[in-house]
Order: sequence, then C-alpha cells, then structure tokens
Amino acid sequence: MKQKALFYHAGCPVCVAAEHQIAAALDPARFTVEIVHLGEQKNRVAEAEAAGVKSVPALVLGGVPFHINFGAPLSALK
Amino acid sequence: MKQKALFYHAGCPVCVAAEHQIAAALDPARFTVEIVHLGEQKNRVAEAEAAGVKSVPALVLGGVPFHINFGAPLSALK
Repeated sequence: MKQKALFYHAGCPVCVAAEHQIAAALDPARFTVEIVHLGEQKNRVAEAEAAGVKSVPALVLGGVPFHINFGAPLSALK
Repeated sequence: MKQKALFYHAGCPVCVAAEHQIAAALDPARFTVEIVHLGEQKNRVAEAEAAGVKSVPALVLGGVPFHINFGAPLSALK
C-alpha cells in the first residue's frame, strides 16, 4: 500500500522550487503525494500545525514534518 | 540517465531522520543518491559549501540545495 506524503506550501518561490524538486522526486511506486496550498486552503492550517509543521514549504512523511528551506512561517498563513 | 542527488549530513539525530525518510523516499528509477557524512569526510565540506549548503541535513538536487530541518551549521563541521 502506498504511503501518503503531504507537501504543504504557500505558493512562494521557495515553495515552488521545493515542490518541483523534492515533492516531484519521491518514488511514485511507494508514495502518493498530496500538495496542499495553505494560502488557498486556510482550513487546513490547523492540520499542518497538528503535524508539527512550523513553516512552509514542508513535507510530512510518515507523520514526521520535514521543513525544506524556509519560505514563510505558518503563523503568517492563519 | 539517472540524476545524482547528494545528501549531506553529520550523523546527528535530525540528519538520520531525514536520511531515513527523505533520501530513502526518492524515486530510485530517476535518482542515484549519494550519502555524504561531512563529519567523517571533512574534505567534502568545501564541495557542499560551493553547492550552497549552509547546514545539515541538506539534499542537493539538480544543483539546488534544500535544507531539511536543522541539525548543525556547516561552519561547525570545518
């Protein structure tokens, strides 16, 4: 069964670079990547926060948040 | 042809988590991942620095450095 990977971003240039390189590089045989734009889906900020996401872009893999470079703090998206 | 991905770390807990989750999640059909332990291979710190790496763990994909969470600054490994 494929594992779900969540990529949270906010459309910033740093986010787009990470999306194109990292999120797109995951093994499609093992992962289903869901891309969540927190600027457009503010109702999911709480979910990201609960997963431990502090800033975007971030990838949540196996329940663990990995912050990739730094685009914006999560607090700016509330 | 496979693209080379370089994962730089220093053996720290944050580094190990990123290696197990992110470096291991890359598509093996498209990427060859080289794991570089900068604490043990200090001669490669300059190479990481030239690629734009500021801290470990970091993944260099397509020549672009992606810092994943924060383990240690590169300056601590010189």
